[in-house]
Amino acid sequence: MLNNASSSTGNASILEGNSFKSEDAAALPARERALIDRRRERLGSAYRLFYRRPVELVRGQGAHAWDADGNEYLDLYNNVPSLGHAHPAVVEAVSRQMAQLNTHTRYLHSAIVDYADDLTSTLPAEDYQTMFVCTGSEANDLALRVGRTFTGSQAWIATSEAYHGNTALVTAHSPSLAGAEAMDPALRVIDPPDTFRHGSSAAAGHAFFEQVRRAIADIEASGDGFAGLIADSSFSSDGVFTGEPGMIAAAVDLVHAHGGVFIADEVQPGFARTGEAFWGFARHGIVPDIITTGKPMGNGFPVAGMIARREVLEPFSSGRPYFNTFGGNPVAIAAAQAVLDTIRAEGLQAHALEVGDQFRTSLRELASAHASIGDVRGAGLYTGVELVEAGSDGVPATTLALTVIERLRDHGVLTSVCGPANNILKLRPPLAFAAADIPRAVDALDTALREAAD
Amino acid sequence: MLNNASSSTGNASILEGNSFKSEDAAALPARERALIDRRRERLGSAYRLFYRRPVELVRGQGAHAWDADGNEYLDLYNNVPSLGHAHPAVVEAVSRQMAQLNTHTRYLHSAIVDYADDLTSTLPAEDYQTMFVCTGSEANDLALRVGRTFTGSQAWIATSEAYHGNTALVTAHSPSLAGAEAMDPALRVIDPPDTFRHGSSAAAGHAFFEQVRRAIADIEASGDGFAGLIADSSFSSDGVFTGEPGMIAAAVDLVHAHGGVFIADEVQPGFARTGEAFWGFARHGIVPDIITTGKPMGNGFPVAGMIARREVLEPFSSGRPYFNTFGGNPVAIAAAQAVLDTIRAEGLQAHALEVGDQFRTSLRELASAHASIGDVRGAGLYTGVELVEAGSDGVPATTLALTVIERLRDHGVLTSVCGPANNILKLRPPLAFAAADIPRAVDALDTALREAAD
Repeated sequence: MLNNASSSTGNASILEGNSFKSEDAAALPARERALIDRRRERLGSAYRLFYRRPVELVRGQGAHAWDADGNEYLDLYNNVPSLGHAHPAVVEAVSRQMAQLNTHTRYLHSAIVDYADDLTSTLPAEDYQTMFVCTGSEANDLALRVGRTFTGSQAWIATSEAYHGNTALVTAHSPSLAGAEAMDPALRVIDPPDTFRHGSSAAAGHAFFEQVRRAIADIEASGDGFAGLIADSSFSSDGVFTGEPGMIAAAVDLVHAHGGVFIADEVQPGFARTGEAFWGFARHGIVPDIITTGKPMGNGFPVAGMIARREVLEPFSSGRPYFNTFGGNPVAIAAAQAVLDTIRAEGLQAHALEVGDQFRTSLRELASAHASIGDVRGAGLYTGVELVEAGSDGVPATTLALTVIERLRDHGVLTSVCGPANNILKLRPPLAFAAADIPRAVDALDTALREAAD
Repeated sequence: MLNNASSSTGNASILEGNSFKSEDAAALPARERALIDRRRERLGSAYRLFYRRPVELVRGQGAHAWDADGNEYLDLYNNVPSLGHAHPAVVEAVSRQMAQLNTHTRYLHSAIVDYADDLTSTLPAEDYQTMFVCTGSEANDLALRVGRTFTGSQAWIATSEAYHGNTALVTAHSPSLAGAEAMDPALRVIDPPDTFRHGSSAAAGHAFFEQVRRAIADIEASGDGFAGLIADSSFSSDGVFTGEPGMIAAAVDLVHAHGGVFIADEVQPGFARTGEAFWGFARHGIVPDIITTGKPMGNGFPVAGMIARREVLEPFSSGRPYFNTFGGNPVAIAAAQAVLDTIRAEGLQAHALEVGDQFRTSLRELASAHASIGDVRGAGLYTGVELVEAGSDGVPATTLALTVIERLRDHGVLTSVCGPANNILKLRPPLAFAAADIPRAVDALDTALREAAD
């Protein structure tokens, strides 16, 4: 087992990761510099751009995109166009419904009910109800309130680099922002199941169980009521720890045994991404109390959902109106239905499983030539490549990773980094990513690692 | 001056207004009843439907819509399709951009900067910066945090029936929900400027000033720091009190004199609705510190914004990353730009002013034949018709109003009620509403009032 299972670098990933800085501007062509200056003037300084030389994308198709100069990129990063950039089925569904009607849920519309039925068919056989919102942030904001109302308790547990969204309540439960934002006073922060540093999925799962156990004990001893655990079962921002199926099941059982609610934040692993299951939590055999989704649900159209067991939702929803103007409108539902239909029609879950395994096999072969590749892990089309100081006991190679993603960008491959030390390449392409794209991705990484080592 | 300028009915409007109730189901056709049952099973009990017999809209065009049985409706209510249902310019812009690219703001894209420029050109000549989100709720959530960070204070003032959105933080600042949700402990709730019960806009403005003055004094005396005032300058949920231009300017000056921030919630009055100005606050000659928008910005596409003076935004945005996955994406911006272009190309601000005045003139003529019409007020295409007990001193006629909107629905005219007693008809059609639609709207109201009185 490697040391340093816990992180001390806190919010480095979001504050100092793959991000353009003003001192990078001098090296840019005049037109890009002018656009970036105007952008900063108009949008303010909270906005970030990827890369020392930001990419100005103007067109996308499948797993590929083009910039304003006509350069083509292989997209290994974007799960907003989860099926693929500009997927025609979603474009067509949205265009058709927009030309027909776009209102809201205070009028009857059968499509929202049909979609909720269809979505429920992908879930464990529980009595789930779905509330539609517009963003993953809104879904998690609602989920935290539903969970608090059901348990009558305030204290949540979250992982140390988790990012669950941008509303006031959700920000306060996103430890990745802890350097910039106040955390909820009752929040307990635990380590993710770091399968690399613990040496095995079993050891990581056990450590995670112990983290959850101690956090619950701390909450109960303090007199804070225990609301539950919110986690992304792929631990995306924490570093992509998909682990073996079942890895986190015991921890979730413990949450339930102590009366807590488990919120599965499926914004990252949901909608077939992990290949092994339609939902990330389903890989682990978990039955969540609440499931939240966002990005992949509408292939870029702003649609999101909070799905809860009826028993958990009822204390919140009974006697309380909730209205989300754009949430679940006919166009949003058309986009979401087209995504679900396309995942089935194109067999994208099986595709993600097969191509993802091939991709990691190729990446592991590459690792044999690069001592700086400490670990290649993932499930389906969600892969983490952890870069370490060569010959070290897993010391994060942050500078190397940040250089590698810049070199990859220059070689026409888009990706970014994650984890507390920004040393983990997050490879999360649109599901259209094909076996034929693998050699290019692996060759580019090979080249970038060689160049970065120079 | 009429009595009862302040409300004691609290959240009645949202909890018991125009809303289908389960006991209404028996009267419905089997297909509708089955759909409503399935809907309740799938979406849970927080969802509401308008009308005792809900309307199942399937198609819309301009200010008109059609239900599943082919019945046509004149839409006097919906400002989500603010320009008009299925406006071709927005459909085309969204379809074209979706087929091209839909990513997020961590890549450069010139359209977002161009749009922010264009939007800023509609604002007072201050140094404003725009942050893009997806919903009015997200915009207000962000605005409250920006205002708190700038002032270093927590206590906001809001009006008694205000609804500012659905996140945890915004819900706690939406007094219309006070019966169902906990309000922020520091929130001070004041009466809106009720131009009807105060007898004049001048008197209502003065009373509003006094309310703000007392609330600030209370905040300062309590040791709570004063963050500011959040208000919709058309006081939509409070009962549509647009008032004379300038009505609330002194109150906003007072907020500024005490170091507070004024948030103009423009989700209702913005984007040319009031005719007299592009923004509702601009009618009053106010320069807001923060402006939030939502519904009308993308004609139904989920796009929203928070616009703040640079000085106010900087303490929040400096050193703090904010990312909203769908916020300001190329498709959202394409929708928003198409809306702005269409407002200009079709002269919709002047149209709203002209047709709105004609509409209220006709409604006031109708009032001479109906003692139950206590007041007709508004600006542009935003009109409130307050129904009162005939011969009373402004006693709200709640039952009459709820019956009238059901009768209007049966006669093919869609609208709803607002205000603490649910007795004010909220007439807020898509801006495509034309002079030719006025006779039908007025005749239907005439008939509905006669039928309801029987």
